[in-house]
Amino acid sequence: MRLSRYFLPILRETPKEAEIVSHRLMLRAGMIRQESAGIYAWLPLGLRVLNKVNAIVREEQNRSGAIELLMPTIQSADLWRESGRYDAYGKEMLRIQDRHDREMLFGPTNEEMITEIFRGYVRSYKDLPLNLYHIQWKFRDEVRPRFGVMRSREFLMKDAYSFDLDQAGAVHSYNKMFVAYLRTFARMGLKAIPMRADTGPIGGNLSHEFIILASTGESEVFCHADYLNYEIPSADTNFDDIPGLQSTVDKWTSLYAATSEMHDEAAFDAVPADKKMSARGIEVGHIFYFGTKYSEPMGAKVMGPDGQEKPVHMGSYGIGPSRLIAAIIEASHDENGIIWPEAVAPFDVAILNLKAGDSATDAASERLYRELSAAGRDVLYDDRDERPGGKFATADLIGVPWQVLIGPKGLAEGKVELKRRATGEREMLSLEDVAARLSRHK
Amino acid sequence: MRLSRYFLPILRETPKEAEIVSHRLMLRAGMIRQESAGIYAWLPLGLRVLNKVNAIVREEQNRSGAIELLMPTIQSADLWRESGRYDAYGKEMLRIQDRHDREMLFGPTNEEMITEIFRGYVRSYKDLPLNLYHIQWKFRDEVRPRFGVMRSREFLMKDAYSFDLDQAGAVHSYNKMFVAYLRTFARMGLKAIPMRADTGPIGGNLSHEFIILASTGESEVFCHADYLNYEIPSADTNFDDIPGLQSTVDKWTSLYAATSEMHDEAAFDAVPADKKMSARGIEVGHIFYFGTKYSEPMGAKVMGPDGQEKPVHMGSYGIGPSRLIAAIIEASHDENGIIWPEAVAPFDVAILNLKAGDSATDAASERLYRELSAAGRDVLYDDRDERPGGKFATADLIGVPWQVLIGPKGLAEGKVELKRRATGEREMLSLEDVAARLSRHK
Repeated sequence: MRLSRYFLPILRETPKEAEIVSHRLMLRAGMIRQESAGIYAWLPLGLRVLNKVNAIVREEQNRSGAIELLMPTIQSADLWRESGRYDAYGKEMLRIQDRHDREMLFGPTNEEMITEIFRGYVRSYKDLPLNLYHIQWKFRDEVRPRFGVMRSREFLMKDAYSFDLDQAGAVHSYNKMFVAYLRTFARMGLKAIPMRADTGPIGGNLSHEFIILASTGESEVFCHADYLNYEIPSADTNFDDIPGLQSTVDKWTSLYAATSEMHDEAAFDAVPADKKMSARGIEVGHIFYFGTKYSEPMGAKVMGPDGQEKPVHMGSYGIGPSRLIAAIIEASHDENGIIWPEAVAPFDVAILNLKAGDSATDAASERLYRELSAAGRDVLYDDRDERPGGKFATADLIGVPWQVLIGPKGLAEGKVELKRRATGEREMLSLEDVAARLSRHK
Repeated sequence: MRLSRYFLPILRETPKEAEIVSHRLMLRAGMIRQESAGIYAWLPLGLRVLNKVNAIVREEQNRSGAIELLMPTIQSADLWRESGRYDAYGKEMLRIQDRHDREMLFGPTNEEMITEIFRGYVRSYKDLPLNLYHIQWKFRDEVRPRFGVMRSREFLMKDAYSFDLDQAGAVHSYNKMFVAYLRTFARMGLKAIPMRADTGPIGGNLSHEFIILASTGESEVFCHADYLNYEIPSADTNFDDIPGLQSTVDKWTSLYAATSEMHDEAAFDAVPADKKMSARGIEVGHIFYFGTKYSEPMGAKVMGPDGQEKPVHMGSYGIGPSRLIAAIIEASHDENGIIWPEAVAPFDVAILNLKAGDSATDAASERLYRELSAAGRDVLYDDRDERPGGKFATADLIGVPWQVLIGPKGLAEGKVELKRRATGEREMLSLEDVAARLSRHK
């Protein structure tokens, strides 16, 4: 992408309304724009990151055997009356009347709708297990939306729903998502620690939050430091291996880890002093097993092998990709801007033509732009007629992992400068070597 | 994808409520499920098609230089008061009050919001031209939603918005989208004919609808038959070539073509008798140039080269991917089901194991499944323990372009059967030759 033809509205001033660093940086980097309280447009740079995050979420959901569909945003109130949640949900639910005065709502979550879909088609235990997910916009009418997309009203959510014949099956489905979540966050360069959680309004009896550590995190968490070095399950994990997955989950839940709500000071005291860690954390995922809480009142039953009809055991599993992006920035930035982990960066590499209009820097920049693009890299080519200082600041602010600085002085010696955003390391190398050097980091 | 692990809820009965063939087939093939009047969930098979359609739309938008962002679904009523459309829009707009009694709405289109975004950042003609698009769910509260996703209330729309300094620039932006639309529909295997259109509630003075011909189309259209054989602009079209694009648009608008609303019997009479075509058509895209209709009242101005501030000239450009899928089915089906054009098919090829459990057919099917998947094909492997008749019917119904039938009898002679859905052609060939045979059609 040539920056001269892109839409990247960088803000010079720090917006006053932004209270946390991710919100400030997302506004300044031209990633988002507030349209109403807690409602944001994703500008081109922000959308690129959102798409990369979604792609990783999707790959790991699919790998675990979950199947993607897409439910609508607007739901019927009657569906929520079946579960009893229509009245229980309170003012966070955005309630709507259509032109025929039918009561509708903008879905804050989809347990009811997916249960309705399930019961419409599935009759036999032979069609289980089943895990259906979607990535769709949700709305929760927070009384005081703030912190940008960290706590917005309209937000993107990946929500998966598992269906099993019995509790044992449901626990295996839960474990699949547990492992998928470990992989998902690790692929984004995050250390996420599963912590036993309260089930809240979703209900149920087994639940974990996935918390990433960031000094600016919203809440205090307590855990055993060994979690930070635990090995992430590999890409060729066999998700059908029931004992194998259970042992992974056991390992990841055996040491102490708790949010402040679930914190047990006595239990934490049993952790060796040099392994005690208390830190700030941000919730980036939440998984639930809640048995027959929805299937029972909504009549989602299957015929078991014994010929008896039984309500299915269900779980639900959420990741908020829009919120997750803010969390990544909280965990990875410096005074100059965002530092994207490579897997979710909006562009892989930025080419900074330090003297646009100079025939040598133009030719070298164009050549590298074509070459890296042809190699499948997402390249942002800063071809604008602007001072080098402005280009450096923009590239640092938007956090592209690699920058190639092409100026007349270096070129006279046949060299360009490669800078790594995360560390600030720089090296001079020939134009020919840039692609090879970057390919080691693909 | 193994069908035994997929979620493909085929209906045996034809649903009574479906009045048109695309609606019937989408319900029967397990592509969609109605959740409320005019509101549908996209089941896994339907979502696959939707994603393929979106990918083509996106590629052609990007090729023309348009830039993707993503605006929220919920908008503020105040924004629409600025343009004067809040009161004018009528009951099709889904109006909402939030918990603080602020007036909101579910966006039926985004002219106001994109104008607000534009004016928030762009100040100079040097940043033009600019074309911003998104693919987002819209809501129009149709008084009588029907025909499935052909006329639903919640629907997906790609809407692009162009910004130019003056009318000449705006016409070039219009022409870019005109050409992008020709390419988009052609890549989906559709013959789409641009027809001069009324501008309706969007307003403005230049507008075309893109109409595809289908015997079950919603309205009557009249055109010169030569359009059917016009060459589609190539992938390497130079979108910066102003006279080049204009001559393409001139060519595609020089012959007679009109919807019934714009039909002029006298002008149609001038078409040679053997070239006169009247047919049923379905609108799949609509483009508008409307000058300063929104920029003027909303204050979206840029500084011109003469130092004067001027309201920008705008256009908007819509394609409804959800509706488009219904239109494709209307144009391409037979008595056994859907016939997908290859570019938008949910799967490229279906492998039908005609005797699941037989070691020879299992081994051959598994091998081909792995081989085609590794070659990057989207493969649906029907590994279920079901009669061949049921498998044939399912594969025909869901319209996968190629079917590989693997049965014990053929295998005994080292052969499998390859069937092309569109023509019914069949050939026997060795397992080894299937991949090579299909790669000719990639």
